[in-house]
Amino acid sequence: MGGDFGPAVLVPGAAISLERHPELRFLFFGKQEFVAPELEKFPKLKAASDIVHCDVAVRMDDKPSQALRQGRWKSSMWKAIEAVKTGDADVCVSAGNTGALMAMSRFCLRTMADIERPAIAAIWPTLRGESIVLDVGATIGADAQQLVDFSVMGAAMARALIETRKPLVGLLNVGVEEIKGQEEVKEAGRLLRDADLPGIEYHGFVEGDDLGKGTVDVVVTEGFSGNIALKTAEGTARQIGEYLRATMSHTWMARLGYLFARGAFNRLRDKMDPRKVNGGVFLGLNGIVIKSHGGADGEGFAAALDMGHDMVRNQLLSKIERDIKQFHRRQGRASDFSREEETAQSPEKDETAKKTS
Amino acid sequence: MGGDFGPAVLVPGAAISLERHPELRFLFFGKQEFVAPELEKFPKLKAASDIVHCDVAVRMDDKPSQALRQGRWKSSMWKAIEAVKTGDADVCVSAGNTGALMAMSRFCLRTMADIERPAIAAIWPTLRGESIVLDVGATIGADAQQLVDFSVMGAAMARALIETRKPLVGLLNVGVEEIKGQEEVKEAGRLLRDADLPGIEYHGFVEGDDLGKGTVDVVVTEGFSGNIALKTAEGTARQIGEYLRATMSHTWMARLGYLFARGAFNRLRDKMDPRKVNGGVFLGLNGIVIKSHGGADGEGFAAALDMGHDMVRNQLLSKIERDIKQFHRRQGRASDFSREEETAQSPEKDETAKKTS
Repeated sequence: MGGDFGPAVLVPGAAISLERHPELRFLFFGKQEFVAPELEKFPKLKAASDIVHCDVAVRMDDKPSQALRQGRWKSSMWKAIEAVKTGDADVCVSAGNTGALMAMSRFCLRTMADIERPAIAAIWPTLRGESIVLDVGATIGADAQQLVDFSVMGAAMARALIETRKPLVGLLNVGVEEIKGQEEVKEAGRLLRDADLPGIEYHGFVEGDDLGKGTVDVVVTEGFSGNIALKTAEGTARQIGEYLRATMSHTWMARLGYLFARGAFNRLRDKMDPRKVNGGVFLGLNGIVIKSHGGADGEGFAAALDMGHDMVRNQLLSKIERDIKQFHRRQGRASDFSREEETAQSPEKDETAKKTS
Repeated sequence: MGGDFGPAVLVPGAAISLERHPELRFLFFGKQEFVAPELEKFPKLKAASDIVHCDVAVRMDDKPSQALRQGRWKSSMWKAIEAVKTGDADVCVSAGNTGALMAMSRFCLRTMADIERPAIAAIWPTLRGESIVLDVGATIGADAQQLVDFSVMGAAMARALIETRKPLVGLLNVGVEEIKGQEEVKEAGRLLRDADLPGIEYHGFVEGDDLGKGTVDVVVTEGFSGNIALKTAEGTARQIGEYLRATMSHTWMARLGYLFARGAFNRLRDKMDPRKVNGGVFLGLNGIVIKSHGGADGEGFAAALDMGHDMVRNQLLSKIERDIKQFHRRQGRASDFSREEETAQSPEKDETAKKTS
């Protein structure tokens, strides 16, 4: 029922994704009278789908707490998330209210063992291909431990989606050195370096302009700056698109040039098409939930479904679970070690501690 | 002596700015043997300039603390800042090491009365013209009071540069509601609304994509997210530029189209030219210091000089001083008022307090 267009876009989107992955099966949670007529238009999809009728639908402008109070146990959003919990579904994809979806997902699925807070991961198009950026809005002001958890989860997602064996992970930071307030980021860097995990190549700090360059496979930051970065990039792309449009219709020479280069412009538009990378993935919960853009069209919603398919096929959840466990085991050992060092007060050890700190 | 090219770019830049503003006078701080030969090439500029020889130059990779220790009292950077303090110069423009420039500026000029921490303001090209964005890297994790000070300073700068009488000010925030950690931003919003200053039209929260749209004249945020936003936008613009270049040389039709539309492309490049908006302004100090991009060319450095000229001509500093005083007076009254309310424990007043809080 979510998004700007509801079943009128979500059902055609599912039909597109089914073409690409014929093994998919769908559960549609929503009002029977809205969903059924749309499904009638796609016989193949209809054969692969069931409708679970729900009377209540969370509205796009409901506050998360309000949605949780009024829609828990019964809304289409809740029921869809619950299907992941019960195992009826492998993944839940929604174009609905982000805040409500996160609140309900946390309440219903709970965070994984050893994970304090969830993150939203986005796929970021870069000059080298694609990167994963997290958190883009779930955990404002994450601390060092949470940033490390995000790194581990993001790397697992990169291995599942981008198919690199040891993804390069960078922590987003500002270039100006010796400035107050990056303590969490510095501390997270130290933790990652010390843990030396087999599934992560820790690169160090990256800056805002490294996002588009694709300097690393996974960029980790807390939710406030991640959300600002994501929306700033979207805004800048739209801004340049506007400039380009205005420029190319300015003179008849430009318009003629545009006619010749139309194929090239179409390729550029494809490249910049946000539908191709639609979907924010909620990481750190006991189940996969994907948020599709509310304004996405069928092709965009299909991209979010495809991503869910990829992550299930690549067993993302069990990979994250294993990596997080491994990390906490190593970190436990490392902190036992440093406690030992602290208690043994020999001057040589103090010197060592200073050097590695 | 700063920047990637030193006097070889800075001196020609000054010559360009002098053409536009013949009333300008320049003091060049640096090694006589490097600056003098460059000045020889521009007789008009030479006549309007003095060289202050300095043996020491801060290096681009010096750490701020190191630069301060080694370059205080004697480096060209310090001397240039000091000239603002003594009144020998109205404004200091440097293409050097940002961290060192900020550290020295704070040490030498000190923050203004009632201002706790400085901010770096950038000019942001938007679909509607230009906006001012601050802080882009001086104060990481600014609190509510500091965000309000930034708003007052940014608005004063907007009135000086963009020549709008009551600039629209927005606080950068994330769209997801009811999420932890935006307390400083919410509190800053409340303070701005309550103060109701004559020189500021407080708009409310804006998001990352509002930067490019030009939704407000002044966007205020703390230094971490501001720096990330600035560099993300620069990176995205470069990324799209790369796509465009690759696309337009892909086929002969595209290349032909490019030939016809070359004028249009040149206009677009001009529009996206970062040199046109070069210069980060240090606000909140007892003097104006402008940081030009280290990689800027003569035209870019001239843009930073022009900005300094505009700010001096429009008496930016005294405007900021007046506004900050006015704000603190109003805020003082407001907090006296709320203290009175708190002590007067009548139920009606409690109700009022609840409504306005």
